[in-house]
Amino acid sequence: MTVAQKRQTRITERPIWRVREDERISADDQVTVEEPLEIRVEEEPMAVIMRTPRHDFELAAGFLLTEGLIKAPRELGAISYCTAAEPPNEENIVEVKMAAGVDFDLAKLKRNFYASSSCGVCGKASIEAISAQAPALAGDFTVAAEMLYDLSDRMRQAQDVFEQTGSLHAAALFDREGELRVLREDVGRHNAVDKLVGHYALRSQPVPPESVLMVSGRTSFEIVQKALMAGIAVVCAVSAPSSLAVDMAREAGMTLVGFLRGRGFNAYAGEQRIEF
Amino acid sequence: MTVAQKRQTRITERPIWRVREDERISADDQVTVEEPLEIRVEEEPMAVIMRTPRHDFELAAGFLLTEGLIKAPRELGAISYCTAAEPPNEENIVEVKMAAGVDFDLAKLKRNFYASSSCGVCGKASIEAISAQAPALAGDFTVAAEMLYDLSDRMRQAQDVFEQTGSLHAAALFDREGELRVLREDVGRHNAVDKLVGHYALRSQPVPPESVLMVSGRTSFEIVQKALMAGIAVVCAVSAPSSLAVDMAREAGMTLVGFLRGRGFNAYAGEQRIEF
Repeated sequence: MTVAQKRQTRITERPIWRVREDERISADDQVTVEEPLEIRVEEEPMAVIMRTPRHDFELAAGFLLTEGLIKAPRELGAISYCTAAEPPNEENIVEVKMAAGVDFDLAKLKRNFYASSSCGVCGKASIEAISAQAPALAGDFTVAAEMLYDLSDRMRQAQDVFEQTGSLHAAALFDREGELRVLREDVGRHNAVDKLVGHYALRSQPVPPESVLMVSGRTSFEIVQKALMAGIAVVCAVSAPSSLAVDMAREAGMTLVGFLRGRGFNAYAGEQRIEF
Repeated sequence: MTVAQKRQTRITERPIWRVREDERISADDQVTVEEPLEIRVEEEPMAVIMRTPRHDFELAAGFLLTEGLIKAPRELGAISYCTAAEPPNEENIVEVKMAAGVDFDLAKLKRNFYASSSCGVCGKASIEAISAQAPALAGDFTVAAEMLYDLSDRMRQAQDVFEQTGSLHAAALFDREGELRVLREDVGRHNAVDKLVGHYALRSQPVPPESVLMVSGRTSFEIVQKALMAGIAVVCAVSAPSSLAVDMAREAGMTLVGFLRGRGFNAYAGEQRIEF
């Protein structure tokens, strides 16, 4: 393990408002680190993966193997961090060399393989780029904490399929009074958000600006990005956000709520939209 | 909504063994449908998304918008299923036309945007292709149901970070006696599996053939594909598998266990490796 890898953290802290019934406490909360990892093979970018730092060389090697991009571990040569990467991406670009004599048909792979990201190596510059491209978020609009307390139950009630398999994610859009606008489900949480946004797009409408998005599970960078691109100002989730989700919400002026369960939640960003 | 969309189901049934303590019942269990959706823009394939069918045109429109591939809903023209698609993919390819006068810079997008799939439109042909490429799975090897009952607790105990944020997924590899071999965590469950496989790849070793993979959460097509490519014969999860995960495990002769909680689980495929 290199010195660089030892420095990596999987947990970091962000300032939050912890809300329980009528109590509001300002605190530092731990969140999981999410950062982009770009995998380059023979100096060509192959994929950008949103991941938790640590064991990055393992991730690159395993990814190439399980996606069928290499056939056996012996095809791998040296793996290292890109030394030319600029802050904060010093440990976010991994360069893979193939072993001597191994022919890696990059052109063929690029045709057949698509990796998962729209953002290149993200970091702060790219968060700013996405923010700049996204529509302005409704600033004046507020929601009541009391209304937020009900959202989780309301989504569950509307999610008729959930009880049957326990394996569909949901995204629900509510108005500021907590009335359901649209609910969509999918094995992929990000797909459920896209379906919901697409519901309006197919009608040539923007998502109503004074809307609250509730998602099952966690909030990743991808969920916040999609909400932001759709102009949704308040995003709530049953579970925790990642570090990058928090950072992007703050940068964009979005309200981000996590651990919304019973009569409590954590506000990670945009607390000014929440009324008590 | 078209007739085609009305036909789509989100839930389907698969035969399982339901195991509770010493009881084994053969039953049909409901699983969420997971199928690939290929999005084409002006006849060029843009992305393949693993999704639950229904609201596919919404998904395509929302995806293009939230990924920044179009700037506004009015840029969208007609959206339809590809009429040339062959069974079983009649409703798995969506064709998007741009509105008249809208310039869609496909070349630029292809440079900047990578979609998420290694398999094209998957279906049965592609499941067979992945099976053919993957190493043979250990056939004789069996595991005791008693050992499986403990795996969930053992993984949680090993997952020191979990308690801190509640937001890291885990993948753990055990030997047939239930001893932990490697544990990896990540915001992405598939990344945790890749890290674990990469742990061996970096040592130029295959994953030990008589291994049991335990993952937190659900099993999707992607998790089963990765396990299969790594030669892992037994895959267990805390939650439900998708339809495509089950189909692929069956095709490949993999043992797939879901809802592994307390002293019970469902066996979705490869029951012959489980000893009672």
